[in-house]
Order: sequence, then structure tokens, then C-alpha cells
Amino acid sequence: MVGNNSSNTAGKPIRCKAAIVRKPGEPLVIEEVIVAPPKRREVRIKIICTSLCHSDLSFWKLTDPPAIYPRILGHEAVGIVESVGEGVHEVVKGDTVIPIFLADCGECTDCLSEKSNLCTKFPFSLSPWMEREETSRFTDINGETLYHFLSVSSFSEYTVVDIAHLTKIDPAIPPNRACLLSCGVSTGLGAAWKTAKVEAGTTVAIFGLGAIGLAVAEGARLCGAKRIIGVDVNQEKCEIGKKFGVTDFVNPGNCGDKTVSQIIMEMTGGGADYCFECVGMKSLVHEAYASCRKGWGKVVVLGVDHPQSMLTFNSFEVLHSGKSIMGSFFGGLKPKSDIRVLEKRYMDKEIRLDEFVTHEVDFKDINKAFDLMTEGKSLRCVIWMNK
Amino acid sequence: MVGNNSSNTAGKPIRCKAAIVRKPGEPLVIEEVIVAPPKRREVRIKIICTSLCHSDLSFWKLTDPPAIYPRILGHEAVGIVESVGEGVHEVVKGDTVIPIFLADCGECTDCLSEKSNLCTKFPFSLSPWMEREETSRFTDINGETLYHFLSVSSFSEYTVVDIAHLTKIDPAIPPNRACLLSCGVSTGLGAAWKTAKVEAGTTVAIFGLGAIGLAVAEGARLCGAKRIIGVDVNQEKCEIGKKFGVTDFVNPGNCGDKTVSQIIMEMTGGGADYCFECVGMKSLVHEAYASCRKGWGKVVVLGVDHPQSMLTFNSFEVLHSGKSIMGSFFGGLKPKSDIRVLEKRYMDKEIRLDEFVTHEVDFKDINKAFDLMTEGKSLRCVIWMNK
Repeated sequence: MVGNNSSNTAGKPIRCKAAIVRKPGEPLVIEEVIVAPPKRREVRIKIICTSLCHSDLSFWKLTDPPAIYPRILGHEAVGIVESVGEGVHEVVKGDTVIPIFLADCGECTDCLSEKSNLCTKFPFSLSPWMEREETSRFTDINGETLYHFLSVSSFSEYTVVDIAHLTKIDPAIPPNRACLLSCGVSTGLGAAWKTAKVEAGTTVAIFGLGAIGLAVAEGARLCGAKRIIGVDVNQEKCEIGKKFGVTDFVNPGNCGDKTVSQIIMEMTGGGADYCFECVGMKSLVHEAYASCRKGWGKVVVLGVDHPQSMLTFNSFEVLHSGKSIMGSFFGGLKPKSDIRVLEKRYMDKEIRLDEFVTHEVDFKDINKAFDLMTEGKSLRCVIWMNK
Repeated sequence: MVGNNSSNTAGKPIRCKAAIVRKPGEPLVIEEVIVAPPKRREVRIKIICTSLCHSDLSFWKLTDPPAIYPRILGHEAVGIVESVGEGVHEVVKGDTVIPIFLADCGECTDCLSEKSNLCTKFPFSLSPWMEREETSRFTDINGETLYHFLSVSSFSEYTVVDIAHLTKIDPAIPPNRACLLSCGVSTGLGAAWKTAKVEAGTTVAIFGLGAIGLAVAEGARLCGAKRIIGVDVNQEKCEIGKKFGVTDFVNPGNCGDKTVSQIIMEMTGGGADYCFECVGMKSLVHEAYASCRKGWGKVVVLGVDHPQSMLTFNSFEVLHSGKSIMGSFFGGLKPKSDIRVLEKRYMDKEIRLDEFVTHEVDFKDINKAFDLMTEGKSLRCVIWMNK
């Protein structure tokens, strides 16, 4: 066993702290864990900071498969390469990297295409293992296996990530901004930029103004949208939304006898050009569809309530409306190339990231981050590993 | 009353022959009818020939609303302007025109936009009236009102059509080809060209090789698709498809234990880039969705089985597949501008239309056209008014 501040850790296990979920919904426990060295095409990284995403919260509470315990959650993060496994040439020790739950192998048809971000070699998976050989790199001090999460497991001082899930970034970007590009905020920015391809001068409606919805607003603003309508049951989102370019606010609780789509149709004289569902409620997908402009409207689905949930559309309306329906997974972004574009645009002061960070805590207080999100008080809470 | 070969018919009623449906499903009866002069922004045209489309057949058999009788069906046609109503400046007597069921007023937001073909001023309607003042221009010789159909009613030697539904064309195009551009064939060509925007080198799957499906194939071929897979339960469509660029054929009856989508996934190594549903069966929309390439696949819906039919998609799949779903109404074509492009491409020998015309009959034999389509023997049967 070697301490985490040694310069000779390569090839050896590292003993460090990680936050473990042993039972669903119970407070995370910070324990000593052993992080094995990276195998072929894997990289071990020292996490600088990590932020809490809603998927962490969902999986923390999950009682049925694919839930599995004990597990190390966390997937939005930034870190420094500590050592690389065999065959890794893309990064070297000391590089600053962002782990991303979606793979980019760089070799398959999808990764070579500009049109897809769905790697065929390493398809999106909820597997608790490292992908290439289905084993874990984590054990607790009693030798018990600890499971990985979304190919990242960033709630640990050190973690092992496949090179297909790592993007090298400019070390000049502040870590508590860089980690946001790892999942949720990028998803929203990408949904407007890459999936919907929002055009200048258009109108956008966003259902749900959490971090993803607000990032959609920011993305739409960057694309030149003229009007950005935010929809949320939380009236406080009206003021918060303004920081991200939301120009109009609809609270479904204040619509009287009208549906949200009726209100939006009236506000826009026929519907929004793009409607984004950012909550994961199928009823809101239908409201989004109804709020969308005939002729060219696009409905973009960013959330799912549960895996068996079905979206239903009237076939006559699909045929005659001229609207299209699409999903946006990780905002349609290609993890390696597009994240660098977002990073540069932040450094050039085009994209606003600072406003997403509402809270920052030390690693020892990680459960506070869960509480804040559960209570709806945070957009993003950054968790510093060693501040 | 004035005969139909007078040069002084303008402003006067015309007595001529029309094929009337008096009861659903009963043979059409050719009777003398009175066609009133065109009112403001209307045009009276002498039909040269008309072709039978599947919508005529569906409405001929329809017993429930919006069915209404007695009615003059027919909506694929070409004709010559006989006279124009007040305020019509776009065409003059003697012009060759195609009536189109979808309006293009040229003034509303949709008609002025490149992105929509869904006129807001005159939305698609199954109304039995002329649109501007909800009256009929047809009566039988006893003075009974005869209803219009799809704003065209071309099963008549003379008909009155709103200027918003007329496109002027080059008189050099043979009438028995021009009429095809009026509905079905244009719909298929446009679905590939304008709705899906098929890219060169891609793979297309077409569910249903009727005239619309074959026109999709022709459109995909023009767009440079490398592989065009036709799916039909009628084995004869295998040979017919080849004339329209279909490169591979799948008969669902010959798939053994596999579904059509499994076969297509195997054939293509992951799915077709574009899947078109041209039958109007919701189960086929789902097969088309399953046959589509993850990452960028587009599913285009061209048919509907009945107005209340619902299309259902798994929300998780919508979110994670990268596929999009869209309808194609009149192929996404703008009636005035895009039809002229298709016409030119036919005259330049780029688009094949000739092969769609499998039968031609005299007006007196119009019921034979219905029989041929009912028996699945014809793609398009052209009905000549006065050959």
C-alpha cells in the first residue's frame, strides 16, 4: 500500500478515501478504499473536485436492479492523471482530464461520424464494472469489491477510468467550472446547440428549469434565440432563469383553466420553434409537443421518468403537423471533440458556467450536497476532494 | 347554360360531365352537372386528365364523417384555365395548371417560410366546401348541391379550385405525367428530398412499395442513396421495385422467426439511415423505428390507419437512441415552388415518372380505375377526360 501523495504510485494500489453507498438512500460513508492500478487502456486519476448530478441522486435511492451495492457513485468531475495503463498514449501523468460517462472510442463508425455520439464499441451502460474486462478496481479495506458507476465513480480521491471516457482539458480552466462540463450542463448546452441546432431569432420553450433546463437556456442564448420561455412549478425559477437568458416564465400553477401549451401557443402566436423536456415526465413531453410550432417545431426529450415509460403521439398529428421528435443524450455531444469547444467558449467568456455553482462543500460533507439537491436548493454543488 | 366548348363560358355556369359518388362504395355515376363560375380568388379549370390516388379510394368507401354525399372525388390532375374569378392575377385563361390539395396562400408565415408547407390561412381540411366562403360550385341537374373533395374534385370535366391550390406548370410536360405531381408521387419524392433530406451514400428502408413508397425510392435514388431496401408482403413488388431504384427486397412473409427489423439490422450492420412508413399501419411505424440506425436514424411517417391511431415509443429509447421521428405531409413540399422543381427535373430526364403509370382509361371507365386499385394491380391509373 502506498500513500496518495507519493510520486511512485504508478503500478501500485493506492489507499485513499471514497464515499460509499452501502444501502440505498442511506447517508454515504467515507471510508478508506484500495484503488488498483489501471489496466490496459485505463487511466488512474486523482479527483480534484466532483459535482453532484441528479443521476447520482436517482441511483443513490434505487432499490431494484440495475442498483447494486456497495457502490462508489459520482460522475461529474475533473482530475489529474496519476498513472496510465498499458497502451495509453493519449494522456500522460499530470494531464488535467474530465471523465465522461459516455464513451468515445475514436474508432467505431459512430465515433468517426460527425452525426453520432453513441459509441458502438462501448455502448452506454449501467454496468458496475470496468468495461473492457468486467472487473472492479475498487475494494474496501476488508477486500470486499466496491462497484463502479457510469464508468466514472468520482466520489473517491482516486478512480480508474477507461481512456475512452476521458477528455484532456486545458488546466487553466478552474476545476469547479471544468467539472460541470462532465455531464449535466454540457447535456443542456448540447441539446440546444447540437441536437436541436437552435437557429438565431427563434423561440424556445424549456420545461423544467433545473441545471439541465437552465443549460438549455444558456445554449439557446448562445445560438441566438430571441425568446426563451421557461416553465417550472417553482416560482423562484423565474428570477433564477433570468441569469441564464430566460426571457419569459410560465408557472403551470398560475395558468388558471388553461394548459401550459395553450398559454405558450398564445404567447408565441402559434407555438415555440423548439421545446425541450428537461424533467423526465411523459405528460410534459406531450405538453412540449402541443406547445411546438406546426410546420417545423422540434421536440427534444432530455429526461425519462422510468425505463418502461411510453411516449404516445397521435399518428394523424405526427403526419400532419410537420413537427419532429428527438431525444438528446449527453446533448448529442461527442465527448472528446465537443467538450473542448465548450471549454474554449467558457475561457473566451462566451458560455456562462459560474452561475450554475450554487454551493461548494468539502468531501467530508458530501451528504450535504445530497440534502441540498433533494431539497431543490442547489443547481450544482461542487464537492472538493482536498481543498 | 353554355356548352363546354364555347369560348364565351367565362362568368357563366358550365354544364358538363362529372363522376359522382352518391353512396359510399357504390360505383361512380357519370352525370351532367352544373359548374358555377369561379368567385373571388377562384379559378375554373378544364381537366385534361386525372389519376386515382389511394385517398380517393378511402373516401369513396367511407361511411362515417367526414364522409358526405353526393360528392365529386378526385384530386390528382392537370387542367387548363377556362376562366378566373375576381382578383386572380397569377394565371390566365389557357394556362396549364396542377391542382394541389394542400394550399399555398403565399402570404402567411408558413407559406413565406422555407421550412413549412402547412399554410396557416387555409389549413388542410376535409371540408366539402370551397374554402373562402364555404359554399359549393357544383349542382346536379336537379339543383342538388354536390360536395367538393380536398379542394380539387377533379373527377369532373370542369372544376373550380382556389388559386391557393393551383400551380402553373409548363404545358410541354405530358398531361399523364403532370397529374402525378399533384399528390402521391410528389409526396414520396418530397419525403426523401425535403423531409428526410436523404444524404448521398446512405441506406434507406421503405415499408410498403405502393406508388408512394416507390416514389420515396425514386427520391432516395435521386438524392444519391447507395442502398434502397423495399419491404412489401407482395412478392411481385420485388421486380417492380427494381425499376425505381430498390436494390434489396424483404418480404415479411419470408422472414422465418425473425422480424423485418431484425433482418434489416443484419443486412445493414446496424440499421438503415432512413426508414419510411408508407402503408399507414402503426405496427409498421414501430418496425421502421426498430430498423433505424442508432445515432442519426430518421423515421418518416407517411401514412395513417385511422385518425385516432396512436404511435407509442419507449421514452428511454427515444432519449438514448439518437433517432428522430417525423411526419411527411405532401412530402414536405411547398405546392407552388417545389412542384416546379420536380417538373423541371422530369423534363430534364432526372426523375422517372413514366413507370408509375400502369394503366390509362377513358373517363367513362372510371370505375375500372377503382377496381384496379382495389385489386392492387395499378400504381397509377390515368383517367382521360376527353381523349
